[in-house]
Amino acid sequence: MSPSAVDVITAKRDGGALSDQAIDWMLGAYDRGEVADEQMSALLMAVFFNGLDGRELRRWTARMIASGDRLDLTGLSRPTVDKHSTGGVGDKISLVLAPLVAACGAAVPQLSGRGLGHTGGTLDKLETIPGWRAALTNDEIRDQLESVGAVVCAAGAGLAPIDRRLYALRDVTGTVESIPLISSSIMSKKIAEGTGALVLDVKVGRGAFIKDHARAVELARTMVALGRDHGVATVAQLTDMDAPLGRTVGNAIEVAEAIDVLRGAGPDDVRALTLSLARTMLELVGLDVDPETRLDDGSAYELYRLMIAAQGGDPDAELATSGLITEVTAPRAGVVAAVDARAGGGAAWRLGAGRARKEDTVSPGAGVRCLVVAGDVVETGQPLFELYADDREHLELGRAAIERAVTIADDAPATRPLLLERIG
Amino acid sequence: MSPSAVDVITAKRDGGALSDQAIDWMLGAYDRGEVADEQMSALLMAVFFNGLDGRELRRWTARMIASGDRLDLTGLSRPTVDKHSTGGVGDKISLVLAPLVAACGAAVPQLSGRGLGHTGGTLDKLETIPGWRAALTNDEIRDQLESVGAVVCAAGAGLAPIDRRLYALRDVTGTVESIPLISSSIMSKKIAEGTGALVLDVKVGRGAFIKDHARAVELARTMVALGRDHGVATVAQLTDMDAPLGRTVGNAIEVAEAIDVLRGAGPDDVRALTLSLARTMLELVGLDVDPETRLDDGSAYELYRLMIAAQGGDPDAELATSGLITEVTAPRAGVVAAVDARAGGGAAWRLGAGRARKEDTVSPGAGVRCLVVAGDVVETGQPLFELYADDREHLELGRAAIERAVTIADDAPATRPLLLERIG
Repeated sequence: MSPSAVDVITAKRDGGALSDQAIDWMLGAYDRGEVADEQMSALLMAVFFNGLDGRELRRWTARMIASGDRLDLTGLSRPTVDKHSTGGVGDKISLVLAPLVAACGAAVPQLSGRGLGHTGGTLDKLETIPGWRAALTNDEIRDQLESVGAVVCAAGAGLAPIDRRLYALRDVTGTVESIPLISSSIMSKKIAEGTGALVLDVKVGRGAFIKDHARAVELARTMVALGRDHGVATVAQLTDMDAPLGRTVGNAIEVAEAIDVLRGAGPDDVRALTLSLARTMLELVGLDVDPETRLDDGSAYELYRLMIAAQGGDPDAELATSGLITEVTAPRAGVVAAVDARAGGGAAWRLGAGRARKEDTVSPGAGVRCLVVAGDVVETGQPLFELYADDREHLELGRAAIERAVTIADDAPATRPLLLERIG
Repeated sequence: MSPSAVDVITAKRDGGALSDQAIDWMLGAYDRGEVADEQMSALLMAVFFNGLDGRELRRWTARMIASGDRLDLTGLSRPTVDKHSTGGVGDKISLVLAPLVAACGAAVPQLSGRGLGHTGGTLDKLETIPGWRAALTNDEIRDQLESVGAVVCAAGAGLAPIDRRLYALRDVTGTVESIPLISSSIMSKKIAEGTGALVLDVKVGRGAFIKDHARAVELARTMVALGRDHGVATVAQLTDMDAPLGRTVGNAIEVAEAIDVLRGAGPDDVRALTLSLARTMLELVGLDVDPETRLDDGSAYELYRLMIAAQGGDPDAELATSGLITEVTAPRAGVVAAVDARAGGGAAWRLGAGRARKEDTVSPGAGVRCLVVAGDVVETGQPLFELYADDREHLELGRAAIERAVTIADDAPATRPLLLERIG
């Protein structure tokens, strides 16, 4: 006899573990429309409170994967390895990392999403390159991985499609912030994409989805276990997200900064994090190459150009910059104690770089350039940020938001490391 | 600015207290269809885990009452007092109590519901009387309270109508068993019905909705506080529901037993509980009458006949008995250790006396007659139960269910009191 939705909900509500059969039935029945949204949201809230144990989460994730296709990337001449970030402000790492790791000999299938809220999306950034297209067929993905070695494209609707419905439901029912639900959402798609190895960049701090260190560690451990259970060699790196990564937050403005890094320049933090993640990815697939040499000899940049061109983009096209520009200056002299990632991301969002709802479009040229970082000494009136927007309304919204982003103090702040612990 | 549904859900999820404004907005928006079922069910599950404090529950209940009409029973020549039971097996108390208390000088507006699952409904029982109708207009209720003194009828759709939607949602989302949600559901309707005083019969035990004594006490205290906050003089009586009340479980079969009690006979437990509740009701409205005299002098029975006739019923009509009858006998000799209310109610339900879904009809003549009670000495083969059903299929389902209802042991069981503590 099939369990009923109420039986499954009350079992989890009362702290019980769900049987494999109950999990398969519940997600399958939801997929078929036999379990209503109000029943699934009650179960998700019960999971928020009582969690899922290792076996339950493994089964739950497997059932999500089974809701759609699983890409087959076996048989390529290179080992596959991907990176996933839980979402940060100014996080353009993928744009550098995918071609860099491909230049070292791996195949990088970066199936990505779009930005929502104050964190940006890799696809939104790349779509500012004239001609570039995010949508590839499965055959195109395989071909490009073989010929170029790196693909950054949209995760197709066929990968763990139930996640789309579950995520939309969680978004409106206050059930987003649950470690098993976050883990299964991320890992079902990454496992379905067919990568052989995976490095997770788990952000923690003011600008991250997770602010608490212990919770970030728990999320990282949970995802690493899920990946390994499904045969994907997985490691997580905790990284600080109190301040934006690099000096830019936006879309085209971040592509330009990524290109700076690919050409051997760019901000130290972006370069350091990219190299660290690249080393871990290469370690996972057994490639003994120092990625720093591929940044410095131009081969990573060359691969970036091939990768962009393979998806129709013109790597030499000029990148958009919004027409209205304003500077925000220091209200007092002192030392920059902090540049707040959350406020910086919020400002970029208000300037037009982000979207409030899935359906919204983003401005390619809007964004924030940070002219100072924590520790810089500033004079009264010295420029702190440059803001870019397409119209005055967005510019003023962004300006109001950025004012909370910087703290100027009398003494130099304690420095925080960018790279926190590695898990797995 | 209005709060959003997600803000309200996450505030409760994270253990916060909801502001009066948030409660009013959320229930109002749900009423208007602006908050979706999946959002309300997530909030109900968060309330299941984190509860509602006294102020929140008062406001929540007030908002439920405000979703519909409130009957005005002021200006009657008698004081009004009602009784509500949280639901038991064989609970025909209302049928005796309403006319008895009216015979003592109070007006009893018993607005009732139908049975669902293993506990019966007062309206289902009275509807076995030919001609009797449950649906009265508000004017008819007032008129009958003035002329007869007792009304047992259907709670109109206009009383706390949001409860209907919330209850239906709770029923399918595993959020029924929450003390604040149970309390607000019961008390919103009882307060809206306009009674001046209320006695709550809170059942605890195997056949009750609540099996745990401490939880029953908490439910009773919560409801008493809610009633008093809304100006209704409220007292709760905890009563045992391990065994069925009286010797009958069903519909017409329970009406017949209630009439026995009204005529001064009938089972001791039904008589004792009815008198105890009657004394509390009379105390609440300041009527110094011994209800036992009104049972013994026939005036309660006379009032019952008037009450039934006022709603179109024929008090002299023969009551239905299902055509198929079977006896269940003792498999061994010994002492009856227990007659399990839950199993007895389940058997009556399977015999056809109850409904699985709101839309189902019930058999008037089906049911169970208990021939023994705990403590009785029985011989092997001695009849324990008589079962009544309209067809063989129901009879066999009921027989299979009743076999678990009786425990025969070597020694006499410890006796349990029917009347537990009074609260308020």
